[in-house]
Amino acid sequence: MPIPTGLTERLGVAHPIIQAPMAGGGDSPALVAAVSEAGGIGVFGAAYLAPPQITEAAKSIREKTPRPFGLNLFSPLPAPVPPRAFAPAIARLAPYYTELGLPPPAAPAPPTYSFDDQLAAVLDSGAAMFSFTFAPVPSEVVAAARARGMLVAGTATTVEEALAIEKLGVDAVVAQGSEAGGHRGSFAQPFEASMIGTMALVPQIVDAVRVPVIASGGIMDGRGIAAAFALGASAVQMGTAFLTCEEAGVSDAYKEKILTSREHETRITRAFSGRPARGIVNRVMIEVGDEVPGFPLQNALTRPMRTAAGKAGRTEYLSLWAGQGLRLARRQKAGELVARLVAEVRVTIDRIGG
Amino acid sequence: MPIPTGLTERLGVAHPIIQAPMAGGGDSPALVAAVSEAGGIGVFGAAYLAPPQITEAAKSIREKTPRPFGLNLFSPLPAPVPPRAFAPAIARLAPYYTELGLPPPAAPAPPTYSFDDQLAAVLDSGAAMFSFTFAPVPSEVVAAARARGMLVAGTATTVEEALAIEKLGVDAVVAQGSEAGGHRGSFAQPFEASMIGTMALVPQIVDAVRVPVIASGGIMDGRGIAAAFALGASAVQMGTAFLTCEEAGVSDAYKEKILTSREHETRITRAFSGRPARGIVNRVMIEVGDEVPGFPLQNALTRPMRTAAGKAGRTEYLSLWAGQGLRLARRQKAGELVARLVAEVRVTIDRIGG
Repeated sequence: MPIPTGLTERLGVAHPIIQAPMAGGGDSPALVAAVSEAGGIGVFGAAYLAPPQITEAAKSIREKTPRPFGLNLFSPLPAPVPPRAFAPAIARLAPYYTELGLPPPAAPAPPTYSFDDQLAAVLDSGAAMFSFTFAPVPSEVVAAARARGMLVAGTATTVEEALAIEKLGVDAVVAQGSEAGGHRGSFAQPFEASMIGTMALVPQIVDAVRVPVIASGGIMDGRGIAAAFALGASAVQMGTAFLTCEEAGVSDAYKEKILTSREHETRITRAFSGRPARGIVNRVMIEVGDEVPGFPLQNALTRPMRTAAGKAGRTEYLSLWAGQGLRLARRQKAGELVARLVAEVRVTIDRIGG
Repeated sequence: MPIPTGLTERLGVAHPIIQAPMAGGGDSPALVAAVSEAGGIGVFGAAYLAPPQITEAAKSIREKTPRPFGLNLFSPLPAPVPPRAFAPAIARLAPYYTELGLPPPAAPAPPTYSFDDQLAAVLDSGAAMFSFTFAPVPSEVVAAARARGMLVAGTATTVEEALAIEKLGVDAVVAQGSEAGGHRGSFAQPFEASMIGTMALVPQIVDAVRVPVIASGGIMDGRGIAAAFALGASAVQMGTAFLTCEEAGVSDAYKEKILTSREHETRITRAFSGRPARGIVNRVMIEVGDEVPGFPLQNALTRPMRTAAGKAGRTEYLSLWAGQGLRLARRQKAGELVARLVAEVRVTIDRIGG
């Protein structure tokens, strides 16, 4: 990679290529380890895991590579207002459960662990990077992770969000453009106001903050990485490009769906989790719509359906998170992808340096 | 500019920087001429002009510069279904007319000229470039313009639209990302499906078509231009960056609004014209909403209001078209902007080539 940035030096990695955390089964310890082993940095999405599972995942990654890796959590959020009754939300989902031969969905049980419990596991994990999504965390959280030597980054979708994240004392801000797959990290404005394309978002955040900026959203190959550097980013974070890799945690049917979908076939939806996220349009997204209980209630209500559908390769019931660059996704090993990206960045910079 | 592309050679211009057509008063013969004089290519938005006005505008540009310039038209569209009665649409707008001291809006008169009439004026204008927006034109239109030696480009917002445009025999495709200000060029899918960010859109279109691609949407400075080249574009088209230039046709109040707005303060609206377009949120956009007569009916209904508001500097009544990169807009002369862009591209490529 032609640009060693402050971030690569700080992390002790060769390439400023971050594999985006994809909580809920998109990533896997094998994917994270493969990316780190190839000289990038894999980040494991630990948001939905209980503390012992986080410890287990970190151990599994560490067994596969001695290189730096990262962990991501969702910031603690105010508890959503539960619907007066779960019956309508359950009734809406019940037919899918029947179709999949599952018992009907049940009102979600209260969580058995807190963000602080998850954080404690992260702090003891040996991870070199900690990132958070959905909101600012208390600045003590940032300080605690930095005290363990971790590089800390938070996600922003507008300039004002980036400034709020920077104020916490982070090492870097992830600028998430509207192209990005999966959950929107928006918190300061309604997400509709925060759908800023990566091309516009990155330079405006770069100009506003002093810390390095990690560009994400629609970056799929070396051309995108070089473009992000041109815009002023110090690193890129890529999700969809890694989701079709052999080591990714999703089903083959999901990967095939990414590989055969077109750039205009993704949409922002609340149907699966209660929070806006970008995925490929499918039956459940259309039928369930956006009038659902808040996150994480809806997420819990749909989880057994998604788990069963993933195993059965039934993509019409899955949250098919994917970004708008999906025509550029390829089947490959994650290490091959990282090597290809590094080569492509060189070629791209040579081409435009012509 | 470090990259002479096929397009610059074909056009006989120094820099692959196109000033986007901004019909309805955003551009001006002075702006177009200043951009062309500085080595880019200015494109005048002639969509709303009668043939003699097109001839007049081209003459005015030619008097100011001997260099190549372009003209843009809106493609012929099926006539919109007129509302059963215009009364409700008129009633909704009437208070604004009263506030501005104008006679109440009237049902629009039928057009006195056709697309073919406009095209005839364009063909005789001496323009070096002809671009079209909103739909494919008949391929004879493309052939006629090319027969006059014009470089012909059409606008696309998805890969499939780009392929449809390429099939007409054009010289280039304009890839309009979701960041772009002003009207969406979408035609093959509903515009909601076609809100693809520039970072994702450009490389996917570049891979799909054989003709050169002109990137647009969120490109505001040399970083954005270098990024567009990295993505594979052969040129860029920039609107908002030129809209705050001294020579632009909009009021000072409009320019000031761009210079003081934030990236999350634009939205897609049909309120002003009946077609989706991106502008800065204001009172009329919010109050009128999207349930309006189709284009160009609503456009005609709101025109006297917008014209009067522009003269009076009353931005709450204006269609404040602007893209998502607006924090990067500056007050300057258009020639200074072009020179600055060229210098910035060099600096950017040197930086990432580091």
